[in-house]
Formats: sequence, structure tokens, C-alpha cells
Amino acid sequence: MRRGKTFIICGPSGVGKGTVVARLLASYPKLYFSVSATTRPPRPGEVDGKHYHFLSREQFQRWIDEDAFLEHAEFVGNLYGTPKLYVDKAMDQGRDVILDIEIQGAEQVHRRRPEAIRIYVAPPSWAELERRLIGRGTEDMEKVRRRLERGKEEFAVARDFDYFVINDTVDRAVEELRAILLAEHCRPDERITQIH
Amino acid sequence: MRRGKTFIICGPSGVGKGTVVARLLASYPKLYFSVSATTRPPRPGEVDGKHYHFLSREQFQRWIDEDAFLEHAEFVGNLYGTPKLYVDKAMDQGRDVILDIEIQGAEQVHRRRPEAIRIYVAPPSWAELERRLIGRGTEDMEKVRRRLERGKEEFAVARDFDYFVINDTVDRAVEELRAILLAEHCRPDERITQIH
Repeated sequence: MRRGKTFIICGPSGVGKGTVVARLLASYPKLYFSVSATTRPPRPGEVDGKHYHFLSREQFQRWIDEDAFLEHAEFVGNLYGTPKLYVDKAMDQGRDVILDIEIQGAEQVHRRRPEAIRIYVAPPSWAELERRLIGRGTEDMEKVRRRLERGKEEFAVARDFDYFVINDTVDRAVEELRAILLAEHCRPDERITQIH
Repeated sequence: MRRGKTFIICGPSGVGKGTVVARLLASYPKLYFSVSATTRPPRPGEVDGKHYHFLSREQFQRWIDEDAFLEHAEFVGNLYGTPKLYVDKAMDQGRDVILDIEIQGAEQVHRRRPEAIRIYVAPPSWAELERRLIGRGTEDMEKVRRRLERGKEEFAVARDFDYFVINDTVDRAVEELRAILLAEHCRPDERITQIH
């Protein structure tokens, strides 16, 4: 059976990546969306194994020691990571895997698995990203400014990604993602073994 | 304006490349299908500039001397080539260009323009290609055998192409070609200049 491929999706806060990824998953039920592990306690309504794999700090540390993460990092006192096990199982079943992770995590995965395809979801412009961040209405202007700064810094890092999808409209972004997934399955290494 | 890209399409005799390319062109009127130059005399109904650019041997030789071809070769006493001029003009107008050429020509273009994307249209199997060649009913078994041999030799050369499209059904092949064209326009070098 054809093995699945891993697609890493990054993008700045406010770009609408969550909406785009949700639409992609809805149209490809065979896709596996990688669920992160975390030491953060579950919030009301969060389901273990669905929203996160909730681990104690000791468990998380053991997984690190056992090299069980594709990437991991600490944010405001909590550990987050991508477990290898579920990713590899899905790929072995022929399913493509979506990793929705931070750009630092993407760099870690890229070093371990250079064959993973890196996609950056970009805003049509920085002015538009600012409008979207302000439009959320949840953050003060200082936080908006910091998020924009960070987005621009990460944009520079993402230059060596494989693809840039512009989230101008959700329809267009999803169409581009679908095209990238299909095109990446037309690569010679995969195809040559299929022709007898 | 966004510059067009060049897509080289190769494939063995009998694979149905002509049908697939015609369907692709019909759905993307903005695509430019590169018209070859040739020293072969026009057949009844062939229109200069549409089916071929018909040149005398002297004109063709002058174009070679002036480095006006992306690739050229001789087949059974006639010269064939891809004029640079029309390809570059279309790309400058933002149009993608389709080069439907022989694999030797693809190698020449690749050396001059490594950024051109090379796509190989493959049969689902060699047995199926044989059926299609026999099904044409125009060739004796010896010719079918020779075409198959040549197809397999070229298949080995095509291993370093960018993409393999399998012409299982025309719909599927066209969908894959469209995905490849769209995905290649999501490359960072093109996209980064679009975001301000």
C-alpha cells in the first residue's frame, strides 16, 4: 500500500489557519490530524486523545527520554509535543498526516524528517493580518503589535518552506492545499513503484 | 505581474498525452501551448503558426545559429524545434507554457532552464500501454514492440522528472496536472513577493 506523507502547516496568529485546516479535514476524511501531547491541564470540555493527549510532567519527560516526540517545546510553563507513534501509524495505514505546529517545531521536524512537506499559510498582506487580529476584539493593541512582529519574523524563517498558501479567501486557500497534497503524491519516488 | 512558468510534458507513444493536454488547455484558456518549428512540409489542412511554424532548412539553420531554440532535434530527415521567442513572450504576459516534446528535447530544455517543471505522463502499466498501442490498429506488432521498448527506456530517463501523472482515466490525469500547475504557483519565490 502507498504510504502516507506528512504535511507541516505553519502560519502567523490570526491568519485563519484553524478554519482552513478544519475545511481541509472535512473534505478529506482519510487525513490524520496529529493531536499534540501536553502537560497543560484539560479545560472544561476538552477530551483526552481528541483535543490533546494530556500527560503528567513525568510521563512527558519519559517520552522525551524515549525519543517519542517528533518535536516538543515549552510555552508559558507547559510542555507541548508531537508524538511520533500516531503519526507513523497513520502513515503506515496510507493516511496523510497534518501537523499544525509552531514554526520552531517545524524546524525540529524538518531536521528529523526532511521529506515532510512544509506549508506556510500567509495573509494576503500584513495590513490585512492586522485587521483580522484587531477584528477578533480579544486583544489590546500592544498584543496585536507583538503578534504582528512575531509573524513577520517567522515569515522570514519560512522562506525555505516548500509552499506558501495565501489565505485570501478560505475557498482559495483550501483549493491550494488540496492541490499541494495531490501534487506531492505525483512524485516519481512514489509513482515509479506503482507502474509494472 | 506574476510571470508564467514552463511545464514540460513527456510520455511514451500511445499513453494518450495528446488527449490529456487538449483537455487541460480547454479548461485553462490562459495556458500557452508551445507550437514547434519544423522543416517538414505542411500536410493538407495544417496551418502555419497553429500546427507548426513551417520553416525552410536555411531559416531553421539561421535560428539555430542565433540560439533561437530552447531545444531542437532531427527526426527522419526533418528538423523540429521549440522557438524561445513565443515561450518567453507568453511567460512575460503571465501565461504558463506547455511544452509537449520528446524526452531528449526535455533534457535540452532542462539544461538551459532548470526551473522548468518536468512532468512525465505514464501508463497505469506496460500491459495497458501495449493494449492501447494495439487498439489503435495502425501499427504492426513489430512497431508496437519497438514503441514499448523505447517507452521503457525513456521511463528510466524520466526518473529525475519532477512529477509522474498516471493516465489511468483522462479525468484523473487532468486533475493531477491541474493540481501540479496550481501547487507550483504556491512556491515561496513567487509568493513572497506578493505579500506586503
